[in-house]
This record gives sequence, structure tokens and C-alpha cells, in this order.
Amino acid sequence: MKGLWLENNQLQLKTDIPMPEPPPGEALVRVLRAGICNTDLELLRGYYPYTGILGHEFVGVVEQGPEELINQRVVGEINAACGYCRFCRSGKPTHCENRTVLGIVNRNGAFAEYLCLPVKNLHPVPENVSTEAATFTEPIAAALEIQQQVQLSPDDRVLVVGDGKLGQLVSQTLALTGCDLLVVGRHPEKLANLKARGIKTGLADAVTDRAFDISVDCTGNPAGFSIARRALRPRGTLVLKSTYSGNLSLDASSLVVDEITLIGSRCGPFSPALELLATKQVDVEPLIHSHYPLSEGLAAFEKAQTKGVLKVLLDMN
Amino acid sequence: MKGLWLENNQLQLKTDIPMPEPPPGEALVRVLRAGICNTDLELLRGYYPYTGILGHEFVGVVEQGPEELINQRVVGEINAACGYCRFCRSGKPTHCENRTVLGIVNRNGAFAEYLCLPVKNLHPVPENVSTEAATFTEPIAAALEIQQQVQLSPDDRVLVVGDGKLGQLVSQTLALTGCDLLVVGRHPEKLANLKARGIKTGLADAVTDRAFDISVDCTGNPAGFSIARRALRPRGTLVLKSTYSGNLSLDASSLVVDEITLIGSRCGPFSPALELLATKQVDVEPLIHSHYPLSEGLAAFEKAQTKGVLKVLLDMN
Repeated sequence: MKGLWLENNQLQLKTDIPMPEPPPGEALVRVLRAGICNTDLELLRGYYPYTGILGHEFVGVVEQGPEELINQRVVGEINAACGYCRFCRSGKPTHCENRTVLGIVNRNGAFAEYLCLPVKNLHPVPENVSTEAATFTEPIAAALEIQQQVQLSPDDRVLVVGDGKLGQLVSQTLALTGCDLLVVGRHPEKLANLKARGIKTGLADAVTDRAFDISVDCTGNPAGFSIARRALRPRGTLVLKSTYSGNLSLDASSLVVDEITLIGSRCGPFSPALELLATKQVDVEPLIHSHYPLSEGLAAFEKAQTKGVLKVLLDMN
Repeated sequence: MKGLWLENNQLQLKTDIPMPEPPPGEALVRVLRAGICNTDLELLRGYYPYTGILGHEFVGVVEQGPEELINQRVVGEINAACGYCRFCRSGKPTHCENRTVLGIVNRNGAFAEYLCLPVKNLHPVPENVSTEAATFTEPIAAALEIQQQVQLSPDDRVLVVGDGKLGQLVSQTLALTGCDLLVVGRHPEKLANLKARGIKTGLADAVTDRAFDISVDCTGNPAGFSIARRALRPRGTLVLKSTYSGNLSLDASSLVVDEITLIGSRCGPFSPALELLATKQVDVEPLIHSHYPLSEGLAAFEKAQTKGVLKVLLDMN
């Protein structure tokens, strides 16, 4: 089958990848559509040493698996957990110490005609959610993880730094909590998407120092972190939502003096993400920049790396 | 009066400092004894640009102030808060945005014959607590701040990194929660103090990676931070208890992937600290290295900076 294969930081379109065969407990999924995420771009830059098919945001149709799922459109949680390690047993399967991760760690990903995932990772896509919209389930779930970690209330002043793909979804989901939200970024045209939904937006200089209870860094760069840090009141919470390649240098004393909490945030819950799509509480349309067929996957990656471009989707069939 | 004066990173013994005059709401305290803290040593190294009398751990006797406190032995909370800023009004006076801090920010400190503090900052020392022991109230309170910030239970595996002055008090107070505690450091003779109290101790190589729910860095150096970080399981919490001069470089991606919480921790509650001293639940005797008269304050500082030395006390009278 065809697929986008990463090896030694080089991406190539392979056409002779063997069809995957699902082991017991897994399903074979024919991929319909998949989205290119910043993590994919970071993997290309060597953020983590992965060899295999890239891609973890997808919608597909089950071709082999339990009867009730056959021919169903599904999305899939990306962490395949062992089920018996101490983290699985304590209810943290996304932190399973034996996990593989779709298109990221030891498991071929979604930028291919077929993939396999454990049946328990699959979620049927509600009928009224388009395949295009459903490819955003995984990043919406990741955005929702923040609300699993930090208690938010309408009294909270919340800052999101970054107007990219993840920043947009984090902002839309946080806005639903009723918190007092400001989103800052560098791209007026991207911020306009959020403004159109009634969300306050601004450029970085709109941020008042020490004015926010919670800030979320969705930039993955030190400048964004710095804005998110300065914005916090004493005892505020900074959520790190992006993976950085390279180290972050910070003033640890100021974290101590101001008793700041930093919290890393990764994968989140799929069911509420699908619910938000089904009830149209999150709008992903303005995030879609373009579609490419899998056979033009390398061009799609070039496009996804272009400044100002939001989501690039790959159509498999 | 005599006092140890810091100016341009130079400490000097001055004998001609004017006697302080307490403004309304403040008391005049004759200092009996004071302790040299790592923050004092960091201030000498330029951690924060302070000019004035150093010192913030003390016991004294009230000479001017409300009648019920006159001639009482007292200890004092070090943050003098304005009472009306947004942080004071929201119950966070230690984060008051107009605060002065005894011997640290815009307020002459305790390494002198007299000091002034707001009356509301003062706590009488219970009769059965020696003056020597009571000089540890402030750092014990700082150690207790951890328990204000992080929920601890007997199920929790907790690691303290650092066997210095603060590490010793953090360890003793954490042990009282019944948590499963390990303390690691570089000085077998310091660890012996804790071992004698039934606390598990070891050298840094005794730490199993990803085995702890909570870790506390009491070293204030990047090597200590690194041990505390590696020790944490996914979704674990790292408490930063020391102020660093200079920046800390960290792998932010690993914080995201493991969803680690970092939390800065500073000043804590005095009343429970005094209670622990009064009930002898914390033993500070083994922490005392030596006493110096104020007139030999510079020698005391030299001693306090010597490797392996724990608490050096200054006797004022």
C-alpha cells in the first residue's frame, strides 16, 4: 500500500508498504482522511527518533474487526496501552509504560491507505459529523485535556498564547467554559477566526503583566512561553500544550517567588471531543487550509510548513 | 545600633545604623537570635538587588508595640503586606504587590540589634520552645507551605532531593504526613540526622526513575532538579523549594509528554510551625552548626558558606 514513511528525518512516499494485519484485539481501518499536526513537523525535525508511517489524526472505515464496527466511520485514540502496567492499572492508559503511539512511537501511523489500532481505541463518528470535521477529533481531545487538569470558572482570566492550529482549538474549547478569555498571536487573519466567534483577541503586546489566573502556551517556542509566564499573577497556572524540540530556559527563582504552577498537557478524551463536533460547539471549517491526495503527500508537508498555513488534510482514497 | 549591612554584594558590619522607629501598626523588636539562610547567601551573590540589613529568620522581644506583646518573645512573618491590593484582598498576603520583605525587599532585616515589623506579622513563642529552636520557625513554615499546595497521602511516594538546612526541615515535616518518603543528598553525615528519625535516606543513585508521585527539589541547582525530574512518574508533581541564581534549562517536551506539574513554593504558615516546635514533632537541634555574636557576623557568614555546614546562628545580645 501507499504511505508517507519517515526515516532518518526524511519523509518519502512509499508505494510498496505491506498491508498491515491486525493482531488479536485490533481492527484494520481503511483511512479516509488525515490531518498534518505540528507534532508531525517536529518529528521531521528530529524531536523524537521515529521510523515508520507518520500521522495520528485520522478518520477511517473499519474493514476488519468486531461486527458492530465493520463499515463504520471511526476515529481512534492514538496511545495503544498494554492494559496491565502500573499506569494502566491506575487509570492512566495514555501514560502506559509499554505504549505504542500511532505514527509517533513504534506504531505505523495514519498517512497511509490502512492502519491498525486496538478496537478499544476506536470511536464511531456520529452521522452528522463530516469526515473532514472528524479529523479534528484528536486535537480537540488534546485541547480538552486542559480542562481535565485545571479547574476553570467564569471568574478566571485565561490567556492563550498562539493562534495556530492547536491554539485555535484550545481557544474555542476554553471559551465554552465561560472563562474570561484572551487569545494572542502573530497572525491577524488567524485571530479573525476566533474574533468572529466572539472571542477576545489581540497581538502579544495586548497582554498585561501579572493579570491572568491561567495561561496556555500553544506556541512551542520560548518567546511564547515568556509571554505566557509574564502574564500570570502570583500562584497562577501555566499550561504547556506544545512539544518543543530543544530545551527551554526559565527563571526558576521567579517560579518559586510567585509560586507558579507549570503543567504539561498532552492527549485528552475523545468522547467529549466528538460531542462538541456533533453539537457544532466547535467550528473547524476555518482551520482547513487545503486538501491533498496521499500521492502528493510530500507537497502537502511542504505546504503545512509554510508560515501562516493552518490545517492541511490528506485524502487517502 | 550594630547590624550586618549588604550593599553592592558586599556585606559589612556597621555600628552606626540609626535605631529604627516603628511606624503606626508596627512593633519594635529587640532581636535575640537569628539564623543564616541560603537566601541570605544567594543575596550576597546578587540573586536579588537588595541594599540594607540582611536576615529574616529571628526570635526577638517586643520593646514597643501593643501592651499584650511587650516583653514577649516573638517570631515574625517576613512579608509585610499592604492589606488592600488585589492579592491581599484575595487572601494571598505573601504575594502582596506592594510588599516589603524582611531583609530581602525594601525592609531592614534581622541581623541587627533591632528590627520593625507589622504587629500582625508577630507570633508569640510558646514558653516551652527555646529561643534557639524558635529561630527555625520561618524555614519550618516554608517547609509546611508544600502541604498547603500539594495534597499528600500515605500512599504517595515522595522524594526529597537535598540534605541541607531546608531539605532537612522539608523532610521532617513531610515525614509527619505518613507518606512513603525517601531523602537523597550528598552528605552522609547530614542524612544521618534524618535516618536517626526513621526516615529513609540514600545517595542520589538510590533514586529509581519514574518511581515517585511527588518530588521536592531543595538543592537550588540544576543537578538536583534533574534528579527530582527523573524520579517522577507520569502526572507526578515536582515542587521547587529553592531559589536559584541563574536560569534553569529543562526539557519542556518531556514535561508535556509526561504531563508533569512543576510548582514553585515559598513562604508558609507560622502557627503550625510553632505548634510543631512546641510539640517537639520537628527536631532542629542537629541542624545547628554554631553560634556567633553579631560582632563576628562576617565570620559567621564565612562559616555558613563552608561546604557541609548546616545552620549558623547569630546571637545579638
